[in-house]
Amino acid sequence: MDPRVREHAETLVGWSARIEAGDDVVVLVDEGAHDLAVAVAEQLGECGANLHATYSSPEMNRAYLRAHEGEFDENPQFEHALYEHADSVLALRAKRNTSAEADVPGDKQQAYTKSRLEIREARMDTDWVSTIHPTRALAQQAGMSYEAYCDFVYDAILRDWEALAEEMATLKTILDEGREVHLSKESDGTDLTMSIEDRTAVNSAASVVYDSHNLPSGEVFTAPTATEGEVTFDVPMTVRGTQLRDVRLVFEDGEVVDWEATQGEDVVSAIIETDEGSRRLGELGIGMNRGIDRITDQILFDEKMGGTVHLALGRAYDANLPDGVGGNDSAVHVDLITDMRMEGTRFEVDGDVIQRDGIFRWEDEFEQ
Amino acid sequence: MDPRVREHAETLVGWSARIEAGDDVVVLVDEGAHDLAVAVAEQLGECGANLHATYSSPEMNRAYLRAHEGEFDENPQFEHALYEHADSVLALRAKRNTSAEADVPGDKQQAYTKSRLEIREARMDTDWVSTIHPTRALAQQAGMSYEAYCDFVYDAILRDWEALAEEMATLKTILDEGREVHLSKESDGTDLTMSIEDRTAVNSAASVVYDSHNLPSGEVFTAPTATEGEVTFDVPMTVRGTQLRDVRLVFEDGEVVDWEATQGEDVVSAIIETDEGSRRLGELGIGMNRGIDRITDQILFDEKMGGTVHLALGRAYDANLPDGVGGNDSAVHVDLITDMRMEGTRFEVDGDVIQRDGIFRWEDEFEQ
Repeated sequence: MDPRVREHAETLVGWSARIEAGDDVVVLVDEGAHDLAVAVAEQLGECGANLHATYSSPEMNRAYLRAHEGEFDENPQFEHALYEHADSVLALRAKRNTSAEADVPGDKQQAYTKSRLEIREARMDTDWVSTIHPTRALAQQAGMSYEAYCDFVYDAILRDWEALAEEMATLKTILDEGREVHLSKESDGTDLTMSIEDRTAVNSAASVVYDSHNLPSGEVFTAPTATEGEVTFDVPMTVRGTQLRDVRLVFEDGEVVDWEATQGEDVVSAIIETDEGSRRLGELGIGMNRGIDRITDQILFDEKMGGTVHLALGRAYDANLPDGVGGNDSAVHVDLITDMRMEGTRFEVDGDVIQRDGIFRWEDEFEQ
Repeated sequence: MDPRVREHAETLVGWSARIEAGDDVVVLVDEGAHDLAVAVAEQLGECGANLHATYSSPEMNRAYLRAHEGEFDENPQFEHALYEHADSVLALRAKRNTSAEADVPGDKQQAYTKSRLEIREARMDTDWVSTIHPTRALAQQAGMSYEAYCDFVYDAILRDWEALAEEMATLKTILDEGREVHLSKESDGTDLTMSIEDRTAVNSAASVVYDSHNLPSGEVFTAPTATEGEVTFDVPMTVRGTQLRDVRLVFEDGEVVDWEATQGEDVVSAIIETDEGSRRLGELGIGMNRGIDRITDQILFDEKMGGTVHLALGRAYDANLPDGVGGNDSAVHVDLITDMRMEGTRFEVDGDVIQRDGIFRWEDEFEQ
């Protein structure tokens, strides 16, 4: 076994999920996740935790859903009981074919999902963590060889998370105390200001103790308001099956008033015109994971990449808002990413340069 | 997919487990059982049953148990709740390496099993069925090529179970009404009589409605007493890691008084000398599955083979006993098989020849 698989399991069980003796842990094993599942079982044994492994197979789902007439029982009790009594859920994502469910009718998939909302809720009420085990299908989706994809995934996952969490805490403090963010890029004319007053940033350090449920993670995010100016998202990203390229948004009084894209402009229009909230930003996120060194069109990795900033049109997260205050509401939450790693870019808070040309001021390479 | 996999799933869900709409079904997916699991998911979808798939991996078990210090929590509630609320459990057995747990310390394995007795009980309280999906590891264990092993397994599983259940009912009636069984083989001097008075035979027709929980099955069994005479078991069988050959037992007053074997005699001695009950028979079984055409040293198949009879030293099953009457009790239950398919063999009940030279009297080939 690749020794990185064992390190991955150690990080997942120890850092991310904080499993302790006696914990009841459900491990969701995707079709391609066997090796990681074995390594995770070893870690759980070492912790003295209790283990129930479920088989999470898109091919089984497809066969089941296609054969089913479509009226699903609501939250079957046996499965609900399993998650209600579980302390943690570790989802080991490892698809063998990312199109395995391509021929399941969408309405049936939705009806099934809807019939199981309480089970999902019970699962989300545990200390859950979702992670990725590299497969050839995921490598293919990223346009990479399998070997190179393995290196890519483990570079992103096997970080010094304690050090990164501390670094992110620094940025969180700056954002929590700050009032206005200014984002600028000479290369494409990006020049955007946002208010972050009274907002609380989240330190997404890939651990349940930070309320961060994905491994890898590595971003700090907050909920901006009163956006003004222009921004170009030069990182290509597939949304609703279409790859968007060079999306440019113009904001006035917090709302998008103009937009264009060199590819996928109709999808951008559809997103923006969804509802009232989809014209405003719900999230400003700063990628801080330096283990992610390239864009692979997988949002879980791309938005965490050190030297990128992402903004989401639509719904804001409660965690960023003061108690009792509602944030931007919308049916959508679509992340768009801009690459800051080029000359003449700045990320400023209340006039202080926090990041220049993609490098934070506390990083070795930075010269104020 | 091999069309026989789908037929297997139909037999399992329809004939064996009798799944109905709304049933909560746990499917135990062994490492090598993916294809059968997909076919079973399709059948469950068609029935409108609810599906929870668990991943049953010897490699995960091994890693977990070896890493665990050995004091296990008793019947963890999350897993107990799953089985308590389940209607059926379908175990799809498909090992990828029959030695996968060879280096797990026996005492740890036992402590783990013991810590989960109530979970096991909850599982056995459902309409459970255990079946086999062919793998290369199982083919290897049977000393067969993979292709030939697939044919062997599906020939045993894809029977006309309704017809076979009727045929077995005929034999059950004969045994229920009978008082004495006489087994004789001219070839090796086997000449054994047993009382079956007041015993109830079980028609093991691979369906929960017959209280028969293995697919394939195909035997009728009862609990004999007052055994007298001699019998040779010419079907080789591996018990406790040793292949026993030509075990010969001599009975007086229901007890083994003399024994020998051309191979594994020390194991035979150890079995017989376990306790009081291990000197007496707990089971007389008659194999009736004509789809099984060869001995593979896998008891699940061998003892069901049409034209064989097996006797078990040790514990009797309650299902064979009158209400409130205890049967032979022992810590062991070891099946030994004799092949009846040769000239000069007879299986008689109260003097009537039921089987001659391995052929039942109601089979086409039989001439009384």
